[in-house]
Amino acid sequence: MKLDRRSTIPLYAQLKELLSDRIRAGDYAPGEKIPSELAFCKELDLSRPTVRQAISELVTEGILIIVKGKGTFVAPEPEKIELKGFNAFAFSFLSARELDGLHDLTVEMVEADSETGRLFDTAGGTGHAGYWKIQWQLTDEDRVFALCQSLIPVYMFPELGNDLKQKRRMIEITANKYAYLPQRANCKIAVRPADHQEARELDIARNSPVLVSTSRLVSRSGNVCEVVRAVMRADLVTIRLDAGRS
Amino acid sequence: MKLDRRSTIPLYAQLKELLSDRIRAGDYAPGEKIPSELAFCKELDLSRPTVRQAISELVTEGILIIVKGKGTFVAPEPEKIELKGFNAFAFSFLSARELDGLHDLTVEMVEADSETGRLFDTAGGTGHAGYWKIQWQLTDEDRVFALCQSLIPVYMFPELGNDLKQKRRMIEITANKYAYLPQRANCKIAVRPADHQEARELDIARNSPVLVSTSRLVSRSGNVCEVVRAVMRADLVTIRLDAGRS
Repeated sequence: MKLDRRSTIPLYAQLKELLSDRIRAGDYAPGEKIPSELAFCKELDLSRPTVRQAISELVTEGILIIVKGKGTFVAPEPEKIELKGFNAFAFSFLSARELDGLHDLTVEMVEADSETGRLFDTAGGTGHAGYWKIQWQLTDEDRVFALCQSLIPVYMFPELGNDLKQKRRMIEITANKYAYLPQRANCKIAVRPADHQEARELDIARNSPVLVSTSRLVSRSGNVCEVVRAVMRADLVTIRLDAGRS
Repeated sequence: MKLDRRSTIPLYAQLKELLSDRIRAGDYAPGEKIPSELAFCKELDLSRPTVRQAISELVTEGILIIVKGKGTFVAPEPEKIELKGFNAFAFSFLSARELDGLHDLTVEMVEADSETGRLFDTAGGTGHAGYWKIQWQLTDEDRVFALCQSLIPVYMFPELGNDLKQKRRMIEITANKYAYLPQRANCKIAVRPADHQEARELDIARNSPVLVSTSRLVSRSGNVCEVVRAVMRADLVTIRLDAGRS
């Protein structure tokens, strides 16, 4: 991208875009000092106030930071969270080995409705006893990075609410439940703007993008045993998949 | 969310948020008619101008549409594209069976630099002959939904540039190349704002979120044989993973 002196877009705004592009391209890395105002004036044949305004707006936006007496730096990136070995079972409650990492876990019973009917394919009429709705958060160094919500049919795990209140361990909860544990799964990953409540709980601006993973897990008995949704901070989370061929 | 009459946020703005939330929650589905202005006045005890202003701004933002003589409707969603059976090999050029679906395919030779060194782990010094940089677009009903770029070491496929210009088929290109074809792969999926060029090529607003998948493919000979990146429209694309346990 080059500056266009005949454009209706003011030069400082064009310079802002140009600097953002360079930062994004890694020409100026996070934490690195950028060239001086004077250097930009020379390089791009711009006046000092034009350069100053562009930089000052990028500082306001948090893209650059000024360190007194040292210069202007690209803001360091927040440390990213890589979800290694991600697969369609990734956020499944019934696939968890331990409950220790699940913060603020709550459980309540909800009635079957048209949405659960769609999610669980129960037009035929199973699952009349309703669903356990389990919610928890995933955190990394005190930052909440994912909001999880799982639905599990009550008829498969009638004691689940009680088990969780009594703080039973997963090994006890899943004992003798072989037929109802997940055997296969599919997962959809999409991006959408955060809603009101998600933005608040994830500590991000409303309408910031979130990565949403929705997994549907099918048990050995052939029924959907869990539908779990995770709403993740898109600015922090990277999903990593591994695959091999024989 | 409820309206807060003591808030400093104007009521019409609160109503806008409330309506957006209901649309997002699916209370009013895409393509569905929403209740009349009068119904909202009654339900929420609001004046007609307040309701009108909220609706009119949602129309301006493209979230609602007015159909003359019929009423106000939730804008229909653009048809989504589901990438079924996604895995870490998904966008790999060397794993493609055919080249027919790869639009606007271009190929050029690029020299090894610090970035390719990092991507291909070639501190030791292989790959001195440089890389083929292949670029193409993926489309669905004339909409470009992904920009792909693959790097492949020239020493593994010295004739690749020529092969592509001659429009050779994949079966010819990969013949006798067994040791250099991908056997395992890892893929990182992240979200970031689109840059200038990506926004133009994908026909989205600058800084709209894009889903970026970056796969690193390792051949049977144990070397990185391809690094492929796909930049996808986050508003259109859903990734679907499947998994099973024995």
